Formats: sequence, C-alpha cells, structure tokens
Amino acid sequence: MVTGGCGFIGSNIVQRLVNEGYKIIVLDDLSSGKKEYINDCLVEKKCEFIEGSITDATLLAKIMPKIDLVIHEAAKPDVRASKKNLFRDFNTNVTGTLHILQAMAQNQVQKIVFASSGGTVYGETEKTPTPENEPFAPISHYGASKAACEQYLSSFSSLYNIEVISLRLGNIYGLPSNHGVMYDFFWKLEKNPSTMEILGDGNQIKSYLYVDDCVDAHMCALQKTLKGHTAFNIASIEGASVNEVAREVVEAMNLSNVEFTYTGGKRGWAGDVRKAVVDISKANKLLSWKPKVSLKEGVKSYISWLETEQNK
Amino acid sequence: MVTGGCGFIGSNIVQRLVNEGYKIIVLDDLSSGKKEYINDCLVEKKCEFIEGSITDATLLAKIMPKIDLVIHEAAKPDVRASKKNLFRDFNTNVTGTLHILQAMAQNQVQKIVFASSGGTVYGETEKTPTPENEPFAPISHYGASKAACEQYLSSFSSLYNIEVISLRLGNIYGLPSNHGVMYDFFWKLEKNPSTMEILGDGNQIKSYLYVDDCVDAHMCALQKTLKGHTAFNIASIEGASVNEVAREVVEAMNLSNVEFTYTGGKRGWAGDVRKAVVDISKANKLLSWKPKVSLKEGVKSYISWLETEQNK
Repeated sequence: MVTGGCGFIGSNIVQRLVNEGYKIIVLDDLSSGKKEYINDCLVEKKCEFIEGSITDATLLAKIMPKIDLVIHEAAKPDVRASKKNLFRDFNTNVTGTLHILQAMAQNQVQKIVFASSGGTVYGETEKTPTPENEPFAPISHYGASKAACEQYLSSFSSLYNIEVISLRLGNIYGLPSNHGVMYDFFWKLEKNPSTMEILGDGNQIKSYLYVDDCVDAHMCALQKTLKGHTAFNIASIEGASVNEVAREVVEAMNLSNVEFTYTGGKRGWAGDVRKAVVDISKANKLLSWKPKVSLKEGVKSYISWLETEQNK
Repeated sequence: MVTGGCGFIGSNIVQRLVNEGYKIIVLDDLSSGKKEYINDCLVEKKCEFIEGSITDATLLAKIMPKIDLVIHEAAKPDVRASKKNLFRDFNTNVTGTLHILQAMAQNQVQKIVFASSGGTVYGETEKTPTPENEPFAPISHYGASKAACEQYLSSFSSLYNIEVISLRLGNIYGLPSNHGVMYDFFWKLEKNPSTMEILGDGNQIKSYLYVDDCVDAHMCALQKTLKGHTAFNIASIEGASVNEVAREVVEAMNLSNVEFTYTGGKRGWAGDVRKAVVDISKANKLLSWKPKVSLKEGVKSYISWLETEQNK
C-alpha cells in the first residue's frame, strides 16, 4: 500500500512501483493529491485506488489484511501553514500514522517505509551536515509532527517486531509539485520577469533533492532488510542557498538581469529552518543510495515541465 | 497551574508549592489521582481545585488567562498498560499536551515545566549513563507519548517564545504512590512473606528517585530561567537492579529468608527497558539540583508509610 499515492512524491513512487511490476493499493483522500497524477496506472488498471483517509480506522482494518508492506507518504505537507493548522495537521500526520501502525500490528504487516523530514526534525542544530543521531529539536509544528511519528514508529517496531525505515527527506522538488520555492519563483517570474521578491535574506540553505532521486531511495529502502527502526537522511550531498536556487530558476527560464528583492530576516517565515543540510553517508553505506541529479539538471527539468503545463 | 495535581507526583508538588506560598490552580480529572492527596490544601483553601481534563480545550481557554506558569504532570502513567491502551493514552498524553500548549500560546503564558520520562524515551540505548542529547528510541507507547510531547514542546517554544523545561524523570517512588515495583513487592510480601515472584530475571536496572528529590527538581526548574526548550534527566546518581530493590523492601519490612522466584526473560514485560540509567550532571550544573535521599532511606520511608496506610 502507498498512502498519499496521489500526492507529489507518492505519485512518483506509485509510477515506479507499477513499472517494476509491484501489485499495489493506493490510499489517498485527495485533499491535496490528484488522481490525474497516476492516471496512466489507473486507466491501465495497474494499481487499485481507494479514496479514503489514513485516519479512518475502519477502512484501514478492511485494507490491511491484503497488505505486505506500507509506504507511508500521506501527510499535510505545508510547513509554513502548520502553525495555523496545528490540530488538523496533527490529526492527519500523527494520529493517522498511529492508525496505520495499529492496523499493521493487528494484521501482522511486517514492514513500513515512512516519509519523515530531514529538513525540519533537527531544527536549528549547529551540527551540519547533520547526522541521523542528532537529537530532534523541531521549530515548526510540521517538523514536530514528523518527529512525533518517529517516536511511535520506534515503539511499534519494538513491540510488534515491525521493520521500520524512516526516510528523512530533504526539500524534494520536481514534477508534478505545485508548491515550494521553485514553483513560487517560476510563477513570480512569469508575472514579472524583471524583479523577484525572495522571502528572508536569501541565505537560507536547504538540501534540495530531485524527486527521481527520492523515489530511488524508497526503492532501496523497500528492497533492503533491516531489523528494528532505522532512519536515513535522504537529500542532496551539499546544501544550496535560496539565492542559488533563484539563479538556477532564472537560468532555466532563459531570463537575465532579474533584480532580486528581499523581505528580510534570516527566515522565510516563522518555523523556517535557516540552514538544513544533512549528512547522507549512512544511506550511501547501508542502502547503497546516492543522488544522481544535480540541482542545475533538476531545476531545468522541473521548469521545463512547468512551462509545458502552463501552455496546456 | 499544576495539571495532574491530585496524582502521585503532582500532589507532592502542590503541597510544596502551597507551603512556599505560591497561588495555584490544580487541574485533575481524578481518573487516577485522588482529591484526598491534597486534602490539607483544599480544606484550608490554600489552592483552587478544578475537576477536568487537559483534553478539554474549552475549559483550558477559561483557566489559562489567569495562569503565569504551568507545571504539567497530567498523564496516563502506566508504561506496561500503554501497549493495550494506545489511543486512550495518546489522547491524554499527547493531544492533551497540545491543548495545554495551544491555550498557553493563545494567552501568552510564558513558561512550562513538563514531566517527561528519562526511563522510557531513550529506549535500549547502549550509552549509559545516558545524557540528554542521546536520540530518542522508545520501546513502549508510553515512552513514545512522552517523546512525542517533547517534539511539540520544541516547536511551541520556538514559534511562541515559550520557556520549556522538560524534566525526564527516572522511576519516581514514595508516598502516596499506589503502583510500581516497590508497591507490588510490599503487597506480595504482605500476602506471602516467605516467597516472592520477581518479573523478568531481576537484573533490570533503573534510576529510582525518591519523590521529595523529584519535587526539589521541579522547584529548581520553576525558579531557573532558561530560554527555549531545555531537557534535564532527573534521577538517582546510580541505577539499582530490581533484585537490589527487592532486598531493600525485604529489609524495610524486617523480613528475612525470603526466597525470590523469577518469571524469567530480560524484561519485566513487553516495553520494559532492561537498563535505564541516566546521566544527571546537566541538572546538577544548570539547575544546581542533586538527589539527597538514598535508596535505603527512601524505601524505608515509603514502606513505613504503606504499613501505616494498611493499618488505617
């Protein structure tokens, strides 16, 4: 089962799994995901789609007996809005994850790959690149929700002998994403190609990762057997500043002489981590995973897709 | 406000606060606490008591405007039963804590002292004595619930500039506790003073701490100002095995030649940490706190109280 399989990352995972011949059930409540993202798979009946929420225990009790392994991507993904939407996001992200885990335990489902968040769980640690054994100190409710999930993944793993792999993802970008810094930059520049406003001072540094590399990591986690709860940072090798990203977007759009203006301050918004760069050597060692797509190539592909979409 | 102020630890804190002249509101749903534990304070009207739950947001919205500082002790405390009672305990321990924090943020309450759990959040780490910067890896749902709370304490602290002190408590014992290993041993020996069954192999090691020392730590945390979220292990300097505790209880009860039998296995139950010994040097340094009561003295006081209670 892929939860959130109609979302940005989930739909990419579903397509890869279908291509590799896996038999899958997609669970998505379509609150932010779209069925059209996995349209090919649905039309050709290559996967089963169930519209529903991970907070629906009755539904999970019906689905879970058929499941061998769960890839859990469903979540309210908006870091910035999580301050305002505390209980809504908590209910989906944390309570929903507990329902998944409880249904797994009741049906002896033995493995889960969980989409955690390397960009938010560590908060503003001074240790960068941050290794997985750094204590959590989230500064956003979104980060807290993912960090809270990992606590229960740990207890479930131990109490029910469930294999848990938490992938602490960096800033994932690529098609068909319709949010995030590159998406915002694209639309700002479409409207006004001479001046662009950047949130904060532009020096915030994040580990951007192209979605194909993120899907690769999920496939590695799927295929690897590791006892207990193991967490991996999944991100680019080096961080990039928001200014660098802005320059790459400008280049990919074939623009020049764009003037950047800044809202100022060291964060883009309350709860924005200024420097989120993680150490990915553990995933390289234990999962034999590494990113393949450079920021330049990734931004180019994504912008090119946004341009095509816009002209549809 | 002291939440869970009619519970075992909470009632001891309430009594100390009243003695030192603090004006307090006690919030307790009496699901496990008892009003008689703070009877003196109530009779002499030295504190206000409100019967209600920390999951009642409407009630919290009424109380919080009057509050300067929260000591948050309310929780479902049974580690062993937390496997069975996942959602009930999650709802009280985690969702309840979110309601407290949200009400604090909405009313600009600037400080909270939180009763976390040093005996369960770290799980079975090999690093003992365990320092506070060891990553969490709980093996019980109770431990996961406390670890999950700390994630939101971190995000709230950062987003609303709330001062948070998490006291990661060891195994607290003393009057008027009516659960735990010493309580169980006392009653087993009352029924049969010649043979006593010990859960596990008796070699599980925990950081037992007498409740008066635990109250001291809360007072230190109350009086100290620390920005952001700071966590402290609060426990005895050295761990003691379950066998040592059994011997102390036998001695305090003036028994001899008691034969111990064992249920076997390295844990008392599923989710029982085999060795939970924490490093308390940070609390000593930053809070100027240290435990004063030895295991021998503490067990003697507690057993003597249990004997008095029994004869009432």
